[in-house]
Amino acid sequence: MSQFVISSNAYKGTRDFYPYESIITNSDSIDLQIYQSYIFYKFKETLLARGFIEYSSSVIESIEPFVKKSGGDLGGKQLYNFTDKGGRDICLRPELTLSVARMIANKFDNLRFPLRWFSIDNCFRYERPQKGRSREFWQAEIDIVGLEAGPSDLELFVVSLKIMESFGAKENSYRVMYNHRLLLEDWIQINNWKDYKVRIYKILDNWLKLDRESNLKLLEEFLSVEDTMKIVMTIEKTGSPWDEYLNLSKKYKELILVNDYITNNNLNENIYLTPVIIRGQEYYTGFIFEIFDNDINNNRSLFGGGRFDNLLDLYGKKIPAVGFAPGDLPVFEFLKNWKLLDNYENFEVWKIVNYPHKVGIVLSTENKVFQLFNDLIPNLVSQNKTFDIDYDYERNTKKRRENLMKRGCKEIIEL
Amino acid sequence: MSQFVISSNAYKGTRDFYPYESIITNSDSIDLQIYQSYIFYKFKETLLARGFIEYSSSVIESIEPFVKKSGGDLGGKQLYNFTDKGGRDICLRPELTLSVARMIANKFDNLRFPLRWFSIDNCFRYERPQKGRSREFWQAEIDIVGLEAGPSDLELFVVSLKIMESFGAKENSYRVMYNHRLLLEDWIQINNWKDYKVRIYKILDNWLKLDRESNLKLLEEFLSVEDTMKIVMTIEKTGSPWDEYLNLSKKYKELILVNDYITNNNLNENIYLTPVIIRGQEYYTGFIFEIFDNDINNNRSLFGGGRFDNLLDLYGKKIPAVGFAPGDLPVFEFLKNWKLLDNYENFEVWKIVNYPHKVGIVLSTENKVFQLFNDLIPNLVSQNKTFDIDYDYERNTKKRRENLMKRGCKEIIEL
Repeated sequence: MSQFVISSNAYKGTRDFYPYESIITNSDSIDLQIYQSYIFYKFKETLLARGFIEYSSSVIESIEPFVKKSGGDLGGKQLYNFTDKGGRDICLRPELTLSVARMIANKFDNLRFPLRWFSIDNCFRYERPQKGRSREFWQAEIDIVGLEAGPSDLELFVVSLKIMESFGAKENSYRVMYNHRLLLEDWIQINNWKDYKVRIYKILDNWLKLDRESNLKLLEEFLSVEDTMKIVMTIEKTGSPWDEYLNLSKKYKELILVNDYITNNNLNENIYLTPVIIRGQEYYTGFIFEIFDNDINNNRSLFGGGRFDNLLDLYGKKIPAVGFAPGDLPVFEFLKNWKLLDNYENFEVWKIVNYPHKVGIVLSTENKVFQLFNDLIPNLVSQNKTFDIDYDYERNTKKRRENLMKRGCKEIIEL
Repeated sequence: MSQFVISSNAYKGTRDFYPYESIITNSDSIDLQIYQSYIFYKFKETLLARGFIEYSSSVIESIEPFVKKSGGDLGGKQLYNFTDKGGRDICLRPELTLSVARMIANKFDNLRFPLRWFSIDNCFRYERPQKGRSREFWQAEIDIVGLEAGPSDLELFVVSLKIMESFGAKENSYRVMYNHRLLLEDWIQINNWKDYKVRIYKILDNWLKLDRESNLKLLEEFLSVEDTMKIVMTIEKTGSPWDEYLNLSKKYKELILVNDYITNNNLNENIYLTPVIIRGQEYYTGFIFEIFDNDINNNRSLFGGGRFDNLLDLYGKKIPAVGFAPGDLPVFEFLKNWKLLDNYENFEVWKIVNYPHKVGIVLSTENKVFQLFNDLIPNLVSQNKTFDIDYDYERNTKKRRENLMKRGCKEIIEL
């Protein structure tokens, strides 16, 4: 057809997903090919079991809300934006939260709140592809919409813990830190740090990435030694500064619920309140949390979330919401790190879905084609068995049987 | 957050998919919200049962292959193309076939052929949105790759029939026409019509859209009355012209297999060979078929496919392939037309997947939250029951129970 040979590489930073069974290669690259469907299968299993239902939105959005909402990189140099052939400024969504907000706003009066919704979809950001980051990435957006702060914060938080459990992650392999935006405000106010709020938030947000000394120095640039130590002691959970923070937290019902849940389940080692969880520039309005890999060489955030009662503000509507949006790659890196992908084949449900009983059919002559399509296959289908057919009747039968076994057939029928 | 209220409409020609259970509205719009997941659920069920496995590729592709392969509208004014921030000319894929070709070419030596592969994904074309067409549409790409013409043509053809059956479509609601690109060439050659080949193909391709007289006139513009009648009689399956066409078809093993399958299953009324199936500009190389709605007011093509042994030519590789790519909207229009969506709730598997046993939990006091999360929910999850929680303990219990029933709960537990 064409004289020119075109490159068959996927667009830089995007990924093709090959079916596991088709690849002849070592297990390393098999993991890479299939991990995503495994990860999201586990997500879906947990979410559907807990009353969440799935929706979906288009990958194309108007650029307007991203420019207005996020500004900065997300609405700017990281945005995959272009002008369509009708002159509309559109983009490939860089995140899923705005799409769910738009969908809810669009049918606000026709929806039965509260919503327990999730979607699993792709997003695009123009970044340098690196470990744990690619230009196209897949995220699950998980939200409870329409419930004020209270038990729903705990419900969502438990969902995130159950997702970690579903992968077989041991408690000591990760830690969960939580905090509250309004508690932070109270703390700033009571200590008369209002003028330094932005600077303090920035240092707290970055705290886990620097060592103690560097953080101290940054605080002492504008705070007294006493105030600096007060912050450090709160972070280190010692003395009266920490007691004060803990006391302030009692004002928020959802923090009491989360704290009691952790205590009742003896999870205090692994899950704790701390002022260093800020969740950056994102517009959270209450409870916030983040899950980190415990590997000291690999101290990354897996995902986080929280309450954002301003979800629909851009669309002129008001509704409370709490949610989180874990991506595929950080979860994959965590699972790989703790060798939780090595035995994914042992997960029973995963096996049933992906490795049903497959029968290999060795056709001995073309005359058998009707027996194949009219008798054998309908029979197999009715028994919930799937099949693979070798039509190559001129070839050696033993070779053909072996080939079908290699392709995953558990049983061979000669026809 | 923002003073400006942004429109919450989806980008023109794209669709949001709301979960069925969340919508308070009439059944018409419910159909529209949920039909796609139902349609593709049925596709998947048939395909997985018949040994096909799923893959997935990115929505972004280089524009190069589309410009080279398709030219015309698909590589031009219909293409959603743009330049990324690194200067690469990319597009949102207008079809899925090129992506699967690229993926196979990219791992050509690492794949275990034959492949029975499918993907279900979105494509974009800049067109005026209309009935059965939108700018974003979803397609299933279904291929057998690595098998020469023969039983695999019949296998794929049977898959397409089984998909129609899976929706409960009656035999008289659609017809299936098939043909063969090389048979057409033989026919043109034997009748000495080589100089008119392009014009004849064009008229045949358009035959079903015009009446008999108009088609006759178009042929008589360049053919003798005898030749014109020869073509018409072949199309109308009468006299020696039709016998000649039928005889020519015997040269192709796959046509014999398909014909015998139809005869053995008494499907001749519904499924037949005809020269009017051309499949337009597409690069088929052998067996081709197309399925049409039988409604005289709505005489549309649902989908079609065939053999394209040139699948990987653009990437400098050679491999035989046969496939088809049904879209969601034409199938939806057909199902709506024949009232096959009215009782989608009756499909047992669909019900099991989408309507599991849901328990409504009425929380009587906040103190019960731990009993809820530590006892009741783990217990329900272990029984494969899903749940919905009403935390609103200050509200009237009867109202709360009713509300949970409306939200699809089959059973109410007060805690």
